[in-house]
This record gives sequence, structure tokens and C-alpha cells, in this order.
Amino acid sequence: MVPQDPHFVSRVRESFGRQKAMALIGAALTTVKPGHVEVALPYRDDLTQQKGFIHGGIIGMIADTACGYAAFSLMPADSSLVTVEYKINILAPARGSLVARGEVIRPGRTLTVTRGEVYAEDGKHIASMQQTLMMLANTPDTPE
Amino acid sequence: MVPQDPHFVSRVRESFGRQKAMALIGAALTTVKPGHVEVALPYRDDLTQQKGFIHGGIIGMIADTACGYAAFSLMPADSSLVTVEYKINILAPARGSLVARGEVIRPGRTLTVTRGEVYAEDGKHIASMQQTLMMLANTPDTPE
Amino acid sequence: MVPQDPHFVSRVRESFGRQKAMALIGAALTTVKPGHVEVALPYRDDLTQQKGFIHGGIIGMIADTACGYAAFSLMPADSSLVTVEYKINILAPARGSLVARGEVIRPGRTLTVTRGEVYAEDGKHIASMQQTLMMLANTPDTPE
Amino acid sequence: MVPQDPHFVSRVRESFGRQKAMALIGAALTTVKPGHVEVALPYRDDLTQQKGFIHGGIIGMIADTACGYAAFSLMPADSSLVTVEYKINILAPARGSLVARGEVIRPGRTLTVTRGEVYAEDGKHIASMQQTLMMLANTPDTPE
Repeated sequence: MVPQDPHFVSRVRESFGRQKAMALIGAALTTVKPGHVEVALPYRDDLTQQKGFIHGGIIGMIADTACGYAAFSLMPADSSLVTVEYKINILAPARGSLVARGEVIRPGRTLTVTRGEVYAEDGKHIASMQQTLMMLANTPDTPE
Repeated sequence: MVPQDPHFVSRVRESFGRQKAMALIGAALTTVKPGHVEVALPYRDDLTQQKGFIHGGIIGMIADTACGYAAFSLMPADSSLVTVEYKINILAPARGSLVARGEVIRPGRTLTVTRGEVYAEDGKHIASMQQTLMMLANTPDTPE
Repeated sequence: MVPQDPHFVSRVRESFGRQKAMALIGAALTTVKPGHVEVALPYRDDLTQQKGFIHGGIIGMIADTACGYAAFSLMPADSSLVTVEYKINILAPARGSLVARGEVIRPGRTLTVTRGEVYAEDGKHIASMQQTLMMLANTPDTPE
Repeated sequence: MVPQDPHFVSRVRESFGRQKAMALIGAALTTVKPGHVEVALPYRDDLTQQKGFIHGGIIGMIADTACGYAAFSLMPADSSLVTVEYKINILAPARGSLVARGEVIRPGRTLTVTRGEVYAEDGKHIASMQQTLMMLANTPDTPE
């Protein structure tokens, strides 16, 4: 897992900082290593579904983001990434703060495959994701 | 597609109304038919990712919710549902308001399988989901 | 759904004919239309799992193949395709002959997304697939 | 990962031995541990697709089987299992013998979630699977 951009940490942090949807749900980027990114989500009442658990789509959001930035950490400085698809199993209901850990399992020139795990504060395994991303070469990672 | 609860429309609407995460993102339940539910998401700047498109996780949230309530519309009045897993392909970047349409493709006693499609206002196909849900019999659909 | 190669039917049929794994399981290519391919699998005892049903992996094989050729039917004559990933729900046990129908839901320059349905002879819905493929331009669809 | 049946190894081996589809493709059960099963697939020319690689559906078959028996190894003696769904990413083309390793990531009373990895003889990572299975209590694992 060798990043192609030596400034990958700041590039990942700046990109995450532009994700207004992460600000909306209160998610924070906590760890950025080559091919490994973690996103923390403090519990908030307004993130819940009808039974008072964290909404499965919110769990998907943080896993998708952690996995995407795990892939992005390895990409060249002048590229951007799009999520092709992801699949997530919800393993247990989530009632508190969460952390999503994304890891690259197969880096590629065009396609990168990642895995994500979401855990509760007590270590309970909440969800598992498998995701595919596509690199867009020579494409800015900013609004057009 | 025969609902087991004649009051399924109000039951679905009340359950959706308890999803604070849907209120957070501004999503609205627009259509509730047996095995078919639609969720509308007006565009908001705070739902975007780093390039200014609607966050892929937000797209997943509304598709997950539309599919889940499509399944819930067919369930007995005293049951609740959990999402087992979902898989979503993002087909095109989304820059405006969206609608997610969920449909049951295989209703079951324990497991139900659904499909979701997300479209932009101009009809562009934004995403496709395939989802599995599990019914919990004799379980309230409200916080414990 | 406009094929880029006017000779797509014969190109699909020849490619399928080189799939020795399809011959092994006795699968036949029955329908080839633009973005739509069907594969038939007559029942055989040696395709079953421990309970006497058609093996879920065999169901996946024919759905994967039908979907892949649905995508391939639209591709340029000098390209080949690789399966990036697929997800399949087994909806019901299969005890007899099957047909898998693959359809393109989003054709793309690089990535194509397809859906597959597998049915029994009596019309019973056996499985649903969602699949992603990547086109390799200027790459022969034959052994190197 | 505690098996509920002390005779789980022989139960898994006997069940695998009834899978005629595994005999058809020449797959062998090599490792059976609690929540961990490996299936080996020697290379054969008749397992290939149009370009001479092992067919992606065949890769799915052995991963599906390894994952399913990883789950089955933990189940009570009087139960059987059905595959609900699986998702597989093909990471690299396969030109030789393969081994599929299935592991339980979340054992459950009704649903079990597993992961599978497929490797080539040289250690190359060929595919990754995430799978969901449902236990059928008091149901024989044999033909009716």
C-alpha cells in the first residue's frame, strides 16, 4: 500500500472537509494511513430510524466514506474517485457512537476494491461493507 | 402483493415519521402502495460530497428507506423489520433533487427481497439497489 | 441499447461457444438481443447440492454469464469484458430446468451495470442478480 | 466460534460429499475448522471462460461453498442452511488452481454472515465474497 502522493494525508483531510454531508451528520475523520481510513460518528438522536437505532443508511454513509478515502489515500494527486457500488451487511442494531474503518483490499489503476467495518464504542461489530471505486485520472476532486 | 394489515398506509407513514434521520436530510414519503414506496429528496447543499454531488451514502439512505418501507407495507401490523443487507450501484452523479422508488420482488415470511431505483428530476437513472430484509414477528416498530 | 458492432449476435455466440464451463454444466445460449441475453440450463442431477437442489453457485454461473453477454452485445467488435463483481439473491430452491435472463440497465464506456433474473420452467422466480462489468478496449476476447 | 455439534467435521464432510456440483467441477474440501472452511479447486481446462481464465461463476461456486460450510460448521446437528445472497468481487483473472477460504464474521441464530477469499497457488488474491445464510431449524440437510 504505497501512496502515489506524498501529501496524501492533507489531500484526504481537505477532501473530507469539503463533504458537507459528513458535517451534517457530525462525522469526523480520525485516522488516515495508506489504504486505511477511519471515520468516527458520535451518537446523535437525529441520526436514528423509527425504533431509535442509528439509521442503516447512516451506517452505510460512514462506511462508504471511510472506504472511499482509504482508496483515495493511494491515488495520484491529480485524480479523483467515484463510488461504483457498495454492499453492506448490518450485523447488529447500533444505539451509540460508531467508528467506520475502511481498508483497501485490492488497489488498482482503474478500479480499487475496499472493505469496511463499523464498530460500536464497546467493540460490537455493527456492519461489514465491500465496495468498488473507479479512479478518474486528471480529474479534480473539487466542484467544477 | 397483498398487505396483511389493511391500515398499512398509515402504519408506513407513522413509522417513516419517526425516522429522525429522514427529517435531518429533508426526505419525504410521497407514495405508499402495496409493495411499492417512494421517497423524495429535495436538493440541499448540505447533502453533498467533496465535488458538489449528492453524497453516495445519502443516495443509499433514501433507497434503503424506500425499499424497507416497500417491504414493511406488506407485513402484519404487529411486526417490525430489520435491514439485513443492501447493495447499490451508483450509475451517475446526482446534482439535484432525487426520488427513490422501492419495490418488493420477493415477499417472504421471514425474508423479503426488494429493489430500489433512484432517479433525478429529469428522469436520469442515478442508482440501483438490491436489498434483503428480515421480519421480526410480534415486535413493535417503536423504540423499546 | 444500440450495439456498436452490427455482428454482435455472432460475436456473442462465438464467445459463449468458447466458454468450456458452460459446456460442462450443459448451459445453452438461447436469446441474443441488444442488451438482453438468455441462457438456458436443463436440469441435471450432477448440478445439485447436498439437498438435491441446483447448486446456488451454478445459479450464479448462468446469471453471471447471461448478464455478461447482455453487456457484451453492446460493445465494440475489438473489445472484451471482465466481470468486476456481482451480487445474487437466491429467492427459492431450484429443482428443475432454469433460464437466466440478463439485461443491461446502464451501458457505459468503461463500466456497464446489468441485472439478471433466473426463472424455473413453471415461471417461479429463483434468483435476482445485480452485476458490474468493465470493458477492456482493443483487447481480444480470445485466449492470449 | 463454538460449534453446536461436536461432530461438525464429519457432518460438514458428509454434506460436502453429497454436493454433486462440487464433484462435477473437481473441488475438494481441504480444511474444516469451527467457522472456517477451505475448498480447493485444481485447474481444469473445462472450467474456463472464453479467454481461457477460470469462469467467474466457478470462482463464485467455490467461494459460496466454502462460506456456506464455514457457517454450517457452527450449526446444530438437526439444522440445514440456505444461501440468502452473496456478493463477489473478481480481483484478478485466474489461470490455475485455486483455493477458497470461507470464514464466519457474524454467527447468528437465524442469519449468519460470512466472508470468502479466493487465492491462486502463487498467493495472488483472486476474489472476495460477502455472503448471508439462513439457518433452517429442525430441517434435514439431505434430499427430502
